[in-house]
Amino acid sequence: MSAVASDTAGTSGAPAAGRCFLVGAGPGPADYLTMRAVKLIGEADAIVYDDLGCEDALSYARPNAELVYVGKRGGKAESLKQPQIDQILVDLCTQGKQVVRLKGGCPSVFSRVASEMTALSVAAIPYELVPGVSSALAAPLFAGFPLTHVSLSTSFTVVSGHDIAGTDWASFRGLPTLVVLMAGRNLGQIARRLVEDAGWAPDTPVAVVRSAGLPDQRTWLTCLATAESDLAEAGQLSPCIVVVGKVAATGSIA
Amino acid sequence: MSAVASDTAGTSGAPAAGRCFLVGAGPGPADYLTMRAVKLIGEADAIVYDDLGCEDALSYARPNAELVYVGKRGGKAESLKQPQIDQILVDLCTQGKQVVRLKGGCPSVFSRVASEMTALSVAAIPYELVPGVSSALAAPLFAGFPLTHVSLSTSFTVVSGHDIAGTDWASFRGLPTLVVLMAGRNLGQIARRLVEDAGWAPDTPVAVVRSAGLPDQRTWLTCLATAESDLAEAGQLSPCIVVVGKVAATGSIA
Repeated sequence: MSAVASDTAGTSGAPAAGRCFLVGAGPGPADYLTMRAVKLIGEADAIVYDDLGCEDALSYARPNAELVYVGKRGGKAESLKQPQIDQILVDLCTQGKQVVRLKGGCPSVFSRVASEMTALSVAAIPYELVPGVSSALAAPLFAGFPLTHVSLSTSFTVVSGHDIAGTDWASFRGLPTLVVLMAGRNLGQIARRLVEDAGWAPDTPVAVVRSAGLPDQRTWLTCLATAESDLAEAGQLSPCIVVVGKVAATGSIA
Repeated sequence: MSAVASDTAGTSGAPAAGRCFLVGAGPGPADYLTMRAVKLIGEADAIVYDDLGCEDALSYARPNAELVYVGKRGGKAESLKQPQIDQILVDLCTQGKQVVRLKGGCPSVFSRVASEMTALSVAAIPYELVPGVSSALAAPLFAGFPLTHVSLSTSFTVVSGHDIAGTDWASFRGLPTLVVLMAGRNLGQIARRLVEDAGWAPDTPVAVVRSAGLPDQRTWLTCLATAESDLAEAGQLSPCIVVVGKVAATGSIA
């Protein structure tokens, strides 16, 4: 909030200063957009958006808004690199536009927003961070259980499952609950690391929630020892949220 | 979602079945309510609400909606106990009412929702969990930084600071980022435990965000070694969110 400079008063025909709102679009369904996100999307001159959780939100854009897709599906070669996305934001704002950078979930969580903040700051463009509903917290609720529980889960940890080698799995030793985002391709490896590196019990419950909040949502309840084999027949797991810990077995999984 | 039974078809003058929506109200300002929360609040016959993050949301209630305050300010003697709150929900739903149980933040995080789910299930009352924007993720954004960062913060852990003795502080050893909710009274003890029990460096950055998202928001940047002394003059710290880790020093703290 403090990062937003006050509007410059309109003077002598100079173009209005551009600004950028870095906005969380929530888990996907437009129902889970915040009121503020809807307002900002409706006012934006340009919307720069990702894959997940953003398509429904675009229905609130002005008919003449510029829509720029910058999704990075699974790191495919044709995807834009982060510096290119940063530059798009700077360029649009430099043109005097009010820009919404729409991110699935919440900008606080694995959104690469720090890179965009730096680029905007360097270009002296005012910006504001706008939180959204994170899939990390919402997916368990959609599957029927909260992440914390008075006796079973007194803390929870959120990590990405994208970079197995670059993650210190041993640091999760002794924790009650782990939420792994982007775990679809690496579920088996993650389960093994938690047992072997972090000492988690092989029978620790695991809930896998695919397409959380969407009509094709599906949830599996398994455990670390059998997660890979139990999900082998599930096919494409992305997008999914994996919750590991006793609390994962408290929901009405269906 | 799967926890909601389908509506019973209206027959022979029997009262409509009650149901309960366990709804996250977000961090406080009504702007951060989801569209779904606004819709459910506007349709509810009764709203059972807490202290934090809920007052603004009540402006969307129907004029004749029954409003039931069940806040538990700091465990004061006159506060309702959780089983009493559970019973209120069951009683209202048994009267055939559509009930919204409004919780600050997100029901996934330290909301005691599991107790309410159990009570509703035992009474055969259908319910639905409705995620909201959690202060744990939003407060850092309001203070100018995200919880994750490509190099500084590859995971984050959320814990309550309410019960110092009942928390296994040593389990947080080696983690990059810790978010402590309800830490206001215990900031000094928490900082000491993280250094002594969990081996965190005394110079680890600490951001304290009070009244996140509200007009009187204030943020302090300190470190574990000096958190208690630096905040000694701050007065009442609640409600506050404490973020510990290198990422806490990346924001434009003001």
